[in-house]
Amino acid sequence: MTERLTARYWIETAYPLEDAAAIMAGEQSTGTFVRVPGETDELRERYAARVEKIAELGTVEAPSLSGSGMPKGMSGPAVRRTAEVTLSWPLENMGVSLPNVQATVAGNLFELKPFSGLKLLDIHFPPSFLTKYQGPQFGVAGTRRLTGVYGRPVIGTILKPSVGMSPEQTAAQVKMLIEAGVDFIKDDELQADGPHCPFEERVPAVLRVIEEFAQATGKRPMYAANITGEIDEMLRRHDLVVAEGGTCVMVSMNSIGLPAMAALRRHTQVAVHGHRNGWGMLSRSHAVGMSFVAFQKFWRLSGIDHVHVNGLQNKFCEDDASVIASARTCLTPMFPPPHAGCEILPVFSSGQSAKQVPDTYMALGSMDLLYACGGGILAHPAGPAAGVRSLHQAWAAAAAGASLADYATSHSELQGALETFAS
Amino acid sequence: MTERLTARYWIETAYPLEDAAAIMAGEQSTGTFVRVPGETDELRERYAARVEKIAELGTVEAPSLSGSGMPKGMSGPAVRRTAEVTLSWPLENMGVSLPNVQATVAGNLFELKPFSGLKLLDIHFPPSFLTKYQGPQFGVAGTRRLTGVYGRPVIGTILKPSVGMSPEQTAAQVKMLIEAGVDFIKDDELQADGPHCPFEERVPAVLRVIEEFAQATGKRPMYAANITGEIDEMLRRHDLVVAEGGTCVMVSMNSIGLPAMAALRRHTQVAVHGHRNGWGMLSRSHAVGMSFVAFQKFWRLSGIDHVHVNGLQNKFCEDDASVIASARTCLTPMFPPPHAGCEILPVFSSGQSAKQVPDTYMALGSMDLLYACGGGILAHPAGPAAGVRSLHQAWAAAAAGASLADYATSHSELQGALETFAS
Repeated sequence: MTERLTARYWIETAYPLEDAAAIMAGEQSTGTFVRVPGETDELRERYAARVEKIAELGTVEAPSLSGSGMPKGMSGPAVRRTAEVTLSWPLENMGVSLPNVQATVAGNLFELKPFSGLKLLDIHFPPSFLTKYQGPQFGVAGTRRLTGVYGRPVIGTILKPSVGMSPEQTAAQVKMLIEAGVDFIKDDELQADGPHCPFEERVPAVLRVIEEFAQATGKRPMYAANITGEIDEMLRRHDLVVAEGGTCVMVSMNSIGLPAMAALRRHTQVAVHGHRNGWGMLSRSHAVGMSFVAFQKFWRLSGIDHVHVNGLQNKFCEDDASVIASARTCLTPMFPPPHAGCEILPVFSSGQSAKQVPDTYMALGSMDLLYACGGGILAHPAGPAAGVRSLHQAWAAAAAGASLADYATSHSELQGALETFAS
Repeated sequence: MTERLTARYWIETAYPLEDAAAIMAGEQSTGTFVRVPGETDELRERYAARVEKIAELGTVEAPSLSGSGMPKGMSGPAVRRTAEVTLSWPLENMGVSLPNVQATVAGNLFELKPFSGLKLLDIHFPPSFLTKYQGPQFGVAGTRRLTGVYGRPVIGTILKPSVGMSPEQTAAQVKMLIEAGVDFIKDDELQADGPHCPFEERVPAVLRVIEEFAQATGKRPMYAANITGEIDEMLRRHDLVVAEGGTCVMVSMNSIGLPAMAALRRHTQVAVHGHRNGWGMLSRSHAVGMSFVAFQKFWRLSGIDHVHVNGLQNKFCEDDASVIASARTCLTPMFPPPHAGCEILPVFSSGQSAKQVPDTYMALGSMDLLYACGGGILAHPAGPAAGVRSLHQAWAAAAAGASLADYATSHSELQGALETFAS
């Protein structure tokens, strides 16, 4: 096995960059802090991580994170350099194993003394990971097939209030929303199997409403039922979704971990909607954690079909450039042909309405997304059906290269949306 | 069900503290950004998270994290306050489910616009979690029973080089180390089932050496075999460890996730050694992530028996006060009697030798720890057996209230250690 795995990092250090990179490579492969008797030249040659590239970026005045150290012999205020460093490992160090890759590329190195900042930016898996991991089962094309939506984004919404509705109230809200025309509805990530709204009551109630609607109209909206829980619970809940005619399950990725996802993927017959709540812990500091590009690659290989990426002008802290970069990476193949690309559907949400549509389309250059709106549908002055139509109209305008204002002159629902959500 | 779950946070915000705390509580329970039609007063009364306490700490000049916002109508430079905020939730919101608790207390809130810093400091689980989660099976007392070590810390070591040794080389190193007198040996977290050192060859080879030693001496050192992998792999590897007479398995906690750990706990017949590699991603920024106090509670309930806490004067970025606070929290009961306390064994490691022993004992006030040394054993000038004896002597000195220097005058191995590891 001569394949190699590579990972790219942003670092900030008072050490010479070559030394800092060598310390990262040593710690995460053959080394300990000092060379030990068994660490022969032959062993180092074969198993040591390799520093592939160092690209210096600039200097910073103050350390981004506390606790870091200075090289021996250095005194006085240190110059701290920033750089991008690329390391590679022979795959025989860890084998085809996502949990063990994670321990290698995102393990102890965040705590290494020379670094006042260290963030994992990207990782390249060799295609042999596809011999063990199944990747998305449905992805973009499969989600279109299951929802019957072509030529525009899948229009979705989220059940609210997050917590507190009974199974019957939930089903009633779903009925209202699918009659309004949405293609996709998801549970809130706070609602999985709370004692006041048990999964085994809520999901059959919701799916009965969807079944009746499908029988009457021929259109079957997708409901992402939040199965997050212990592994046996998740598999059992998945089976209930399938038995009741559902087409999607949702998991809180950071709550369940990669092995649970891989186990679910081997079992699932429906699409898996990945919710990234808790993601802020890994992403909000520029100086530590993991980029979304790296994060979603682990999860795509594990088998998610959709993942949340926030939306433009969202109500969280993430800026628009980051949102678009995240969405693009979901649609970018992980492996070249003839291997599977493992593309997944990016889910835009948070404060979305018709008004962000042209910028979203312009920036992403694709209709392959799930566009989820709460108030952007429910708060439309002419009601939720008009809210959904305003979104269809906004995407049609974007596709035609027309401005929303122009298109709205002949489309009253879009006009209503623009007046309501202008601010 | 009237039990409540509470969580305490550190926050930094330009918003009035009461408003900021209310936004956290709303986002993580009944609310969305705006009040929706179904969110009745009755529903809020029953399901809304409650702000239990706000303790103002002080102000900061610059935001710790970028991307945060200011309250509407505020212009000019904002005063950013820091505070500790305690929230509580009715348990019926999420039920007895660690993955769903995590989605609630450590979900979207890290990305909320009002916060330029938000870190989870602590969480209090109601005792009903013990009806579903099993907690540590062995913990401190069980690990002493399995190793036969009483009245002093368990003395451990780590197999190095991290990667590259064959199964036979690994077994030979284990033989040398147990003959030197160590009580505990662990695989490196980078070594689980690499193609050059397959688990199914390494573990029988190592456990054969331990079995022979146990037959000859009556002492059975504990070997933490790194089973990290997919769930089926972990259970199968556990079974091999048991079949070969082993007493411990190791997992990279952040690689496997809570549900995989709960599944392993239901299955395991041996102690579970928790490695926290990747922990730096959650801990190194003061402004975002999770404290070790909160982190280890999730994992103790899930069933780990040991967890890494670094060591005094370690070679990573963590300071001594943080190390001791982490170790203390492992030994502090999670629930009052008659419930199980779920105490686990803290594992000290990283640059440890005899020299840190008095400070460690003084600060921790307990012998209930695993004290792991690499160079502190192997680099002893009189060999590894003298290295282990120097550690026994150092702990005996600490227990007797004697200084290392005094005690070393009549204990040559300790004397050798002090001379070698003085710097």
